[in-house]
Amino acid sequence: MRRLYHIPLSPFCRKVRVALAEKGLGFELRTELPWDRRPEFLALNPAGEVPLLVEEDERIVIPDSQAICEYLDEAYPDRRLMGFDPVIRAETRRLTAWFDQKFQREVTIYILYEKVNKRLSNRTDPSGDTIRAGQANLRVHMNYIAWLVERRRWLAGEEFGLADITAAAQLSCLDYLGSVPWDDYPAVKEWYAPVKSRPSFRPLLMDRVAGLTPPAHYPDLDF
Amino acid sequence: MRRLYHIPLSPFCRKVRVALAEKGLGFELRTELPWDRRPEFLALNPAGEVPLLVEEDERIVIPDSQAICEYLDEAYPDRRLMGFDPVIRAETRRLTAWFDQKFQREVTIYILYEKVNKRLSNRTDPSGDTIRAGQANLRVHMNYIAWLVERRRWLAGEEFGLADITAAAQLSCLDYLGSVPWDDYPAVKEWYAPVKSRPSFRPLLMDRVAGLTPPAHYPDLDF
Repeated sequence: MRRLYHIPLSPFCRKVRVALAEKGLGFELRTELPWDRRPEFLALNPAGEVPLLVEEDERIVIPDSQAICEYLDEAYPDRRLMGFDPVIRAETRRLTAWFDQKFQREVTIYILYEKVNKRLSNRTDPSGDTIRAGQANLRVHMNYIAWLVERRRWLAGEEFGLADITAAAQLSCLDYLGSVPWDDYPAVKEWYAPVKSRPSFRPLLMDRVAGLTPPAHYPDLDF
Repeated sequence: MRRLYHIPLSPFCRKVRVALAEKGLGFELRTELPWDRRPEFLALNPAGEVPLLVEEDERIVIPDSQAICEYLDEAYPDRRLMGFDPVIRAETRRLTAWFDQKFQREVTIYILYEKVNKRLSNRTDPSGDTIRAGQANLRVHMNYIAWLVERRRWLAGEEFGLADITAAAQLSCLDYLGSVPWDDYPAVKEWYAPVKSRPSFRPLLMDRVAGLTPPAHYPDLDF
């Protein structure tokens, strides 16, 4: 069976889990802690990173969330997550790069990596200054999402797709930590609530990381 | 006409220039220094980054080298840079992610960004320790390239493609700085020489950055 190696609070792993579910593709989910550097996993992916997708045909082994999603839209084109129109596909790719790279660099690394990864990988204490910088940057991105959804039904256009999945996967990890100022951004909350309610998103709301309890609203669909 | 916004010593911009040339797609090359934050450019790409591709149909605007290359293989499928076979396409995507992300993070940021970007963007002096760390990491990647090309004609398989372009674009920037220990890695040199000789690669060898003279072997096809 198709396998996805993941860690629970990774925005990139979450993005792929939702993408697979939205496309109706079954998969076995395996937790893989990259910092363990397990030899059997390194043999599958010498880069040692998650997410990693291994298809039923085990010669197809793909790391990197966007590489996986490009592959999925190509191999299973019936339910395309980047749309069919070239303009929408370009816009979807622009926004997935935005959230995978810019949001990750400016927000997620500062908040999630400080609060969680440092603890899990047994390194040092989180830095308050770094977390505050991430929270300030998050407000810039919340404004950008608001700006987009005031002009369009979904982030890249009139259809739900990979841009929404990518942004929501990032926000869902921060939401687990209680770090998203939803009340200050009603337009963003209004976009996020129906994403969170999709069946594809439910398993993410069940994830729990030992020692870190999410806020009460985290699994609440009517938050 | 199709336009590509770029800076000369960016591995990502070089990757797209070679990809366009390999596909026989004409384009106008415009130099855009991202740190200038030119309002007209930010209106095109709010992320403010290069490379940025703007198609003749100006509604198609795509940042991010891999997003651009995925688009190009989709929109102009006759000469595919990721191959046709799903296994080869998966392997090509694995390796482009390797060089775009892992090589970039472990080598290029330590060497190229220290030696060039700090100077161009008028910040601080390069750090010798950082550069030495990058050079040590580069040797690990040179070994990996050697390992691949001892088993295959090209990096991802029997055909030249995007994995080769991505790796060669990275190495070409370091080569401009005289930072690649070619003589210690004859198998890598043997793979790189014919890449460097391809017509698509020639314009890169003409690039010059003010104040930085490349070593004599840099433009030499028979180096």
